[in-house]
Amino acid sequence: MVSEAIQTVPVGRIGMVMATIRQRIAARSLVAGSRLPSVRVLARSMQVSVSTVVEAYNRLVAEGAILSRPGSGFYVASQLAPLELSALEPKLDRAIDPLWISRQSLEGDESVLKPGCGWMPASWLPQQTIRKALRTVSRGSAEALANYGSPLGLPPLRQLISRRLGERGVEAAPDQIMLTESGTQAIDLLCRYLLEPGDTVLVDDPCYFNFQALLRAHRIRMVSVPYTPAGPDIDALASILAERRPRLYITNSAVHNPTGATLSPVIAHRVLKLADQHGLIIIEDDIFADFEHAPAPRLAGFDGLNRVIQIGSFSKTLSASARCGFVAARPEWIEGLIDLKIATMFGGARLNEELTHAALSDSGFRRHAAALRVRLERARREASERLREMGVTPWIEPRAGIFLWCRLPAGLDSADVARIALASGLVLAPGNAFSVGQTASGFMRFNVAQMDDRVFEALQACLQQALLSHSDKEHAPSAQ
Amino acid sequence: MVSEAIQTVPVGRIGMVMATIRQRIAARSLVAGSRLPSVRVLARSMQVSVSTVVEAYNRLVAEGAILSRPGSGFYVASQLAPLELSALEPKLDRAIDPLWISRQSLEGDESVLKPGCGWMPASWLPQQTIRKALRTVSRGSAEALANYGSPLGLPPLRQLISRRLGERGVEAAPDQIMLTESGTQAIDLLCRYLLEPGDTVLVDDPCYFNFQALLRAHRIRMVSVPYTPAGPDIDALASILAERRPRLYITNSAVHNPTGATLSPVIAHRVLKLADQHGLIIIEDDIFADFEHAPAPRLAGFDGLNRVIQIGSFSKTLSASARCGFVAARPEWIEGLIDLKIATMFGGARLNEELTHAALSDSGFRRHAAALRVRLERARREASERLREMGVTPWIEPRAGIFLWCRLPAGLDSADVARIALASGLVLAPGNAFSVGQTASGFMRFNVAQMDDRVFEALQACLQQALLSHSDKEHAPSAQ
Repeated sequence: MVSEAIQTVPVGRIGMVMATIRQRIAARSLVAGSRLPSVRVLARSMQVSVSTVVEAYNRLVAEGAILSRPGSGFYVASQLAPLELSALEPKLDRAIDPLWISRQSLEGDESVLKPGCGWMPASWLPQQTIRKALRTVSRGSAEALANYGSPLGLPPLRQLISRRLGERGVEAAPDQIMLTESGTQAIDLLCRYLLEPGDTVLVDDPCYFNFQALLRAHRIRMVSVPYTPAGPDIDALASILAERRPRLYITNSAVHNPTGATLSPVIAHRVLKLADQHGLIIIEDDIFADFEHAPAPRLAGFDGLNRVIQIGSFSKTLSASARCGFVAARPEWIEGLIDLKIATMFGGARLNEELTHAALSDSGFRRHAAALRVRLERARREASERLREMGVTPWIEPRAGIFLWCRLPAGLDSADVARIALASGLVLAPGNAFSVGQTASGFMRFNVAQMDDRVFEALQACLQQALLSHSDKEHAPSAQ
Repeated sequence: MVSEAIQTVPVGRIGMVMATIRQRIAARSLVAGSRLPSVRVLARSMQVSVSTVVEAYNRLVAEGAILSRPGSGFYVASQLAPLELSALEPKLDRAIDPLWISRQSLEGDESVLKPGCGWMPASWLPQQTIRKALRTVSRGSAEALANYGSPLGLPPLRQLISRRLGERGVEAAPDQIMLTESGTQAIDLLCRYLLEPGDTVLVDDPCYFNFQALLRAHRIRMVSVPYTPAGPDIDALASILAERRPRLYITNSAVHNPTGATLSPVIAHRVLKLADQHGLIIIEDDIFADFEHAPAPRLAGFDGLNRVIQIGSFSKTLSASARCGFVAARPEWIEGLIDLKIATMFGGARLNEELTHAALSDSGFRRHAAALRVRLERARREASERLREMGVTPWIEPRAGIFLWCRLPAGLDSADVARIALASGLVLAPGNAFSVGQTASGFMRFNVAQMDDRVFEALQACLQQALLSHSDKEHAPSAQ
């Protein structure tokens, strides 16, 4: 009887039940040792037959994923449950899932249009400088070519970074600077160093979407503070610090990602007072520093690297291919970070450090950076005009950087627009991918360096398509 | 009265009390909210005056590290307690602390003699090949110089690795291979992916000492299985798997670190049978693969990358400066690892991947690797002879690789010898740094590529000094 049932039930439904159970195990909503729903209960809730569930459970037992205790039920086996970031709660719609968007941008080839990505096209970066640096390093010492880097990292590069930080008002001795693989890896190391499971971390709303993916990997609770054109909303910040007691606050100061806003001195001071009051540590992500014409206030500058930690990298203005980032912090924290770096990566990437140093020391780099700022200013202005013509309105006109954070017309939902766009090979960055509080469904981030005529045309077409299907739903409840 | 006491108590003792309390907080033996020892109890146990402890506690209150609850006592403040690897239990004697030994080797300049380190001198690595690869890449495309790497990593390099794995009997399609920053970072990612806090991991005894530092960073319990000249002790392995139920086993097969032993086919099969029985995942660290003349059995080969994961890198035979490693695993695990890689590092280091690919494709590399194997064979033979003359006896004569794992003469304790050596600028690798079970105090690991006449002379002198002070202690309890 049962075997006939198996033959007539499409594999599809059995597979669906199995996948559902596996998903709950992967997302850790069913943990090792916990009892699975009874066969009848699951059959009813999934609207399949009891024999489908029986077969699915039996196959899961054969796989070792669950155990059967006769008379008692089915239980999750004490089994390997790898950390599947894409399966963790909250399960995000792909169109606004930071991880999924990142993968689309990173995996796409040159034919994929990506005004949603966070980096400039290769042609905007200082190619000649990088080529020259490679040739310089090819003539370097055998040790530079072959040996592990020292734990803190190449001394001349740390001295160079120390000088550059000084130009931005941040005092950091070379030995308070530790080189890392990238800005992202610097923040990751800091999270491993400073946080314990169950801690809460504060981010801006909106914020750089990979912070969210990173914090998911640390199984950390995230809370957010609304961002204004001059920095975080101070009253909201005061409440959140008092109620939620986050351990850490991760933010940008000079060029906020995604809004392009700049932290004002007044708000900087108030943030630091609140941080002192509540024992808050701040990680100030300064990877867009080279995009500024004149330096804006840095939290690390006012604070003197007491409770503020600065991180930076050269991925945005030099090369994302020759990975090099850094942390600047109190000496005792640098000490502890060195140990963690050795344990998890052993030695540094000396070749990348030599390359970066050679490139940054080249006079061509400063000239290139100056020309880049001019080019970006023009690109922001032009993109702003063309977007406004389409009814897409920048929230502010940033004074530096590659991003425009814009409101879509007519109450459109940016996740809908992003989905439509993907079907035509256009990768967009919808607002809620940046928003822990999911308050930005009407917004989208645009990268002005990735926006040529093809992109504007494709965007126009997607907006029109979205407007059509939106007006069809006009009498339906708002998607926001 | 109290202020007079402060003036007469040397700052030294107050500082000592404060340091002791801070240390216990850092090591998490005093956690946030827990009550500190009463003033009298601590004064008695540390043999200082009550007023010293009072002053120390008051200063810690002023610092915010502890709070005073009048009538109740002093409590640890709910404060930041960074993950200080060097402060975690068990607190290891520096001379055998993996982290400390690694730092000495990585921070030391060319004048520091380091027969205890795990890499070859720069002059032994294929410099011309690396220089040529740098020039080649300097003429590459703008995208190669500037863009983020794809998440899996440069396709031609993964194809090359796939072919090389095939030559060693390991079948891995290019898309089952994910490039990483290094072998260490590959293992670190795998630990984040596969393990949960409180899990147990099995390693060999002895094993590569940075595994221990890495597992400390993951707050994982370690157990170990004794290693024989042909692989892990199978009977011991069977007991440990049944009793301690480790989630993961990290090991080498072809050239074991530190012993140089080679896994036999018989033991390989038995290991895999036990792994199947107990649901054990195995990480097979194959970074010494290029040192072999003829390929030994690989667990991943027999297992078909089902429950075995292979990791590798080119730090030992190409360059530790141009960081590049890889993971080869089941497709579904690679999928999950990609997400974790993006979240914690964003894009790969494309330049390093291009460099590594160019270098490995160069015919000069294979010639160099062949010559290197010959050179190492001679170096092992010569070092073995000279060590035996000093009464230092290799446990086995390895068929490949850079290490000799040797027993010291006359019951000497290798930590003692290592301490004496450090005073003369000689960094040694004492046995217990490699031994979770602390069973190797009579052993030491030597790197034959780092042993010239100066090293043998210095070693001879240290051994003589150690023998003298050992015979002074002959009637004292054995240090072992």
